[in-house]
Amino acid sequence: MQWRYATKSFDASRRIPAATWATLQESLVLSASSFGLQPYRFILVSDPATRARLMPHAWNQRQVVDASHFVVLAARTSMTEAEIDRFLDRVVEARGGSIEALAGYRQLMVGHLLGAEAAARVPQWAARQASIALGNLMTCAALLAVDTCPIEGFVPAEFDRILGLTAQGYASVVCCALGYRSADDKYAAAPKVRFPAVELVWTV
Amino acid sequence: MQWRYATKSFDASRRIPAATWATLQESLVLSASSFGLQPYRFILVSDPATRARLMPHAWNQRQVVDASHFVVLAARTSMTEAEIDRFLDRVVEARGGSIEALAGYRQLMVGHLLGAEAAARVPQWAARQASIALGNLMTCAALLAVDTCPIEGFVPAEFDRILGLTAQGYASVVCCALGYRSADDKYAAAPKVRFPAVELVWTV
Repeated sequence: MQWRYATKSFDASRRIPAATWATLQESLVLSASSFGLQPYRFILVSDPATRARLMPHAWNQRQVVDASHFVVLAARTSMTEAEIDRFLDRVVEARGGSIEALAGYRQLMVGHLLGAEAAARVPQWAARQASIALGNLMTCAALLAVDTCPIEGFVPAEFDRILGLTAQGYASVVCCALGYRSADDKYAAAPKVRFPAVELVWTV
Repeated sequence: MQWRYATKSFDASRRIPAATWATLQESLVLSASSFGLQPYRFILVSDPATRARLMPHAWNQRQVVDASHFVVLAARTSMTEAEIDRFLDRVVEARGGSIEALAGYRQLMVGHLLGAEAAARVPQWAARQASIALGNLMTCAALLAVDTCPIEGFVPAEFDRILGLTAQGYASVVCCALGYRSADDKYAAAPKVRFPAVELVWTV
């Protein structure tokens, strides 16, 4: 984590090897989420033309087009009984047992995520789960000596439109460019700026 | 990440060694955040009596009292010019240069985080930054063979009250219990439940 930094300038000629990317993708898949529901999708934007269309809506940051890989982390905008049941089917598939035995768990999730008041919280709840995955992704990338730049400076509505996310029930939350720093990225040598631990961590 | 799981039963007799905890705390401090602003605090609840007061507001989950360490990740509920300037002072302290040279950066943050419309987004923006830190913390813990259980099942308003967070401008977002699994935690052997990568990762 000392090694990594928000890479401003990527070497557009260097690609993340397929095996390394497979590991990073697995870090997204294995991320922990509330109830285990994984209320997100990770959009790997490989098409250069699509990246070029996204860039102007991301403050023209060149990481969008220069980085080896560019991922948009998108969160569900609502939950449904069908989605909860799809997850419970997966639980039974992975662990055995019966759907009936999970009735209490189902009720807990339904109570927490459906209904008018609960539903209003879902987009932000899902966005937080996607943010957990971003943390995992950046840390795993650093372990594999892959540079990253998390990007919040973009217009989500435009990204959603270009990627066709809205109709599928997702909204973009945050992006991550991944690849290898340019030799001339002056930010690579800049000291990290953090508040001291004694300010950030309160012991009670 | 295959090794870790949401630990339901911690061995209350096992403590995380001080050096290991120092590393985990550093993973929180070094977490990346939007603009670098670190709009969060990590409350390490060491006092057993406080943990006991929190537990009933966390669905009586015993991880709150049994785990070696228990952290509440709290996010700022608003941003101020003073907080932004405090951060910019830190930038100059760490990297040199002048406050004046950061005027454009300051204006960008002010425009994005202050003012009525922007301010309404701050609590959720800050909560997402805290969630990134949770991802880092869980992944770093797993690397150090420390078990974790992220906990969203609690009543934030009660936690805020007991920990005195509201008056300080923070709201609890999510918790993380850390320590070592009990030998009898049956969930340790349960297969992971994840949607397949082909469903979670869309390539465009």
